[in-house]
Amino acid sequence: MGWGDLGAFGEPSKETPNLDQMAAEGMLFLDFYTANPLCSPSRAALLTGRLPVRNGFYTTNAHARNAYTPQDIVGGIPDSELLLPELLKKAGYINKIIGKWHLGHRPKFHPLKHGFDEWFGSPNCHFGPFDNRALPNIPVYRDWEMIGRYYEDFKIDLKTGEANLTQIYLQEALDFISKQQASQQPFFLYWAIDATHAPVYASKHFLGTSQRGLYGDAVREIDDSIGKILTHLQKLGISENTFVFFTSDNGAALISAPKQGGSNGPFLCGKQTTFEGGMRAPAIAWWPGRIPAGKVSHQLGNVMDLFTTSLSLAGLQPPSDRQIDGIDLLPAILQGKLIDRPIFYYRGGEMMAVRVGLYKAHYWTWSNSWEEYSKGIDFCPGQNVSGVTTHTQEEHTTLPLLFHLGRDPGEKYPLSFASDEYQRVMQQIYFVVQQHKTTLVPGEPQLNVCDKAVMNWSPPGCEKLGKCLTPPKSDPKKCFWPH
Amino acid sequence: MGWGDLGAFGEPSKETPNLDQMAAEGMLFLDFYTANPLCSPSRAALLTGRLPVRNGFYTTNAHARNAYTPQDIVGGIPDSELLLPELLKKAGYINKIIGKWHLGHRPKFHPLKHGFDEWFGSPNCHFGPFDNRALPNIPVYRDWEMIGRYYEDFKIDLKTGEANLTQIYLQEALDFISKQQASQQPFFLYWAIDATHAPVYASKHFLGTSQRGLYGDAVREIDDSIGKILTHLQKLGISENTFVFFTSDNGAALISAPKQGGSNGPFLCGKQTTFEGGMRAPAIAWWPGRIPAGKVSHQLGNVMDLFTTSLSLAGLQPPSDRQIDGIDLLPAILQGKLIDRPIFYYRGGEMMAVRVGLYKAHYWTWSNSWEEYSKGIDFCPGQNVSGVTTHTQEEHTTLPLLFHLGRDPGEKYPLSFASDEYQRVMQQIYFVVQQHKTTLVPGEPQLNVCDKAVMNWSPPGCEKLGKCLTPPKSDPKKCFWPH
Repeated sequence: MGWGDLGAFGEPSKETPNLDQMAAEGMLFLDFYTANPLCSPSRAALLTGRLPVRNGFYTTNAHARNAYTPQDIVGGIPDSELLLPELLKKAGYINKIIGKWHLGHRPKFHPLKHGFDEWFGSPNCHFGPFDNRALPNIPVYRDWEMIGRYYEDFKIDLKTGEANLTQIYLQEALDFISKQQASQQPFFLYWAIDATHAPVYASKHFLGTSQRGLYGDAVREIDDSIGKILTHLQKLGISENTFVFFTSDNGAALISAPKQGGSNGPFLCGKQTTFEGGMRAPAIAWWPGRIPAGKVSHQLGNVMDLFTTSLSLAGLQPPSDRQIDGIDLLPAILQGKLIDRPIFYYRGGEMMAVRVGLYKAHYWTWSNSWEEYSKGIDFCPGQNVSGVTTHTQEEHTTLPLLFHLGRDPGEKYPLSFASDEYQRVMQQIYFVVQQHKTTLVPGEPQLNVCDKAVMNWSPPGCEKLGKCLTPPKSDPKKCFWPH
Repeated sequence: MGWGDLGAFGEPSKETPNLDQMAAEGMLFLDFYTANPLCSPSRAALLTGRLPVRNGFYTTNAHARNAYTPQDIVGGIPDSELLLPELLKKAGYINKIIGKWHLGHRPKFHPLKHGFDEWFGSPNCHFGPFDNRALPNIPVYRDWEMIGRYYEDFKIDLKTGEANLTQIYLQEALDFISKQQASQQPFFLYWAIDATHAPVYASKHFLGTSQRGLYGDAVREIDDSIGKILTHLQKLGISENTFVFFTSDNGAALISAPKQGGSNGPFLCGKQTTFEGGMRAPAIAWWPGRIPAGKVSHQLGNVMDLFTTSLSLAGLQPPSDRQIDGIDLLPAILQGKLIDRPIFYYRGGEMMAVRVGLYKAHYWTWSNSWEEYSKGIDFCPGQNVSGVTTHTQEEHTTLPLLFHLGRDPGEKYPLSFASDEYQRVMQQIYFVVQQHKTTLVPGEPQLNVCDKAVMNWSPPGCEKLGKCLTPPKSDPKKCFWPH
């Protein structure tokens, strides 16, 4: 989902009454970011509190490429990374992930080996080819074992767009919360549903209910589900003891808009890019009785902060043996403080841009290649800012393109290089970037090698279901990342 | 101001707490339109309840041109038009206009000759040349007489952007309301301030307070003023007896963005165009005790509806001897009903587009000419939708470009001409358009003739002030409207 997909953020259909209500009862973050313009790296960053370039969720196969964890990826989350649930365990938390893991699907990357106690969901996106022949359909796990596969046991009607998956994920969440409340045990629930990812779907009750088509139906169902989760917490009497945060893992995908793509509001471009539309995310913090109702924050936030903030809530310290990028947002959330910190926008191993205060400097610009663009792949449909949404990788490291995101949230008007403002601000930004780059120790890149043999042919539990497939011979190759 | 300039509509700085609060206490209109992509025609339509092509506020000098009332305009509001204050008078209302009149400045067009009892403000925009030599500076009237001129008696510091005008207009409003409340007389206040029009300004207290620069400072001052007006109504105990409506006369101007231009949120282009960014306006209805708090309406609304709605509130019928385009919004506001009605998007005498339900059909597309565009005049900065934001006037009357504004609020993806949806919807739209066109009786165009002799050289009252200037010899010419 994108920044502009919520009524509270100006979506013209205003079809998210529950999220809008959540914002009215909590705190709306206007300047909150994902750690990457793509899913897997952003989620790895959320759970480790570290930039993908540190935790290994990036590629060096070509310059500045987005990479994730498709079925043939060999890598995944390294054992050396400390994940939020591993740490929360020490404070007695029971941790559950519902939905998409996306941090690697080979046995050693299994979420239950990385701190989660329970899992219901799938390791990858539920992409095609949908027939389980040339490639296996994505498995759905309950804890250690596969209990079925997408399109087979977990139906998605690609023609009508009907699927019950969000309802299933919702029920899992409600059940888990009830169980934890009954056992009086503190819990961490990572509700990582896969809607609104393409192929987009919604359950029957929501189909055709949105002004926005199928994508809007999916948004409505998520909105409704979040309303039900919050109400459930209230009914169980634990809402004042539960911190809830809603956000996204990247900007709305515009490539298949309008049918399967969302809105990034007034921001430039979408998912896959380091423009605001690619990484600014909707974000709401909710904690009745602790967060005063109806607050708005301009704190620069990042999904990585959820790592540090959650540890803080549990009375834990973040690991001190490594660089942690996430900050503790509690002073911003509970006391309205503004903490000075930069936002880094990466594509692969390259720092494309940085935000300091209201200023954003692009060190590299790229939407996608002419080759892809000429095939109709467009991350910036209807948008074209000369010299900014470039189709070649443009280096600006000596004279970064500088934007003032307050006056120009759409990144349309670079500041004049000759202006005093440019000179003054870039001095400050150069310092921030230099400090970042000189201390950066990149992790071992995990998203370089692909091999069809590692796909989900025979996940644990497949025998019981008679759903084991025979993998081909191992043939590891450099993954090809086109953008 | 544009749709996207309010926090409630997703402006990322969210700096309009008073307007957002007004929306939270009242009804937010998401699908509300101006009658024209330009100021004068939109205001003439608001006060007459009729499209500019009917009330004469258009030009036929060239095809599909925007026209307004600059200082050298000969025309103005015809005596044959019935204005809202003229009609409200019959129900005992005292009518005041504060701010910009914009319906013609020659003596016969004076607002006090068209139903207003009081006026404080100016007849035109406060454009340059600012030195009162080649052209007169715009006068400021109190009722029948000029009491000073912009840049002379009503200072605007073009360098710092400081001006006290919005504060002056605010005080006028508060005083008028107090006076009416004291005398127990019903009133109609048309608070038509000229901020945020370029050249943009704000008073000292607001300068530098916005994340958005000077334009944002102006928005903050307007927001603050509206908060003060609403609080004043509440303090006087008349808020439950006063209907308040906030809206704009055209989409945000993007031509001088980011310094002097606002935001149209996710919509295409800005002021001067018949894309959504040119005519979709922010709109909030407020009436504590009558409008339930926090409501949202998808009623297709138009500034012309304020004419009919206001008459309805005063227990009056709209005139029956002429076509009225405005509808009574009270069923939508008080009972949440949705009234079926089209929205027509005109440029000059040409119907460029029409909206029926969620569908919008473009019969003509044009942003501006190549000639203007090549000079840097851009109504769609950073936006370029192939075949849509055209720089030549493109006729689509046989096969209109059709958009679904729910799935595609940004008008980026025209529906396929071959689709069932296109065929079905266009049948309906053809009927609406045919009915509109066959019954249309265009008014005598008022914005065709310009003459430097009619400028504000010697407005009434100039003698007392020693501010009379000598007009040149009359030399009427066709006005030149470039876009």
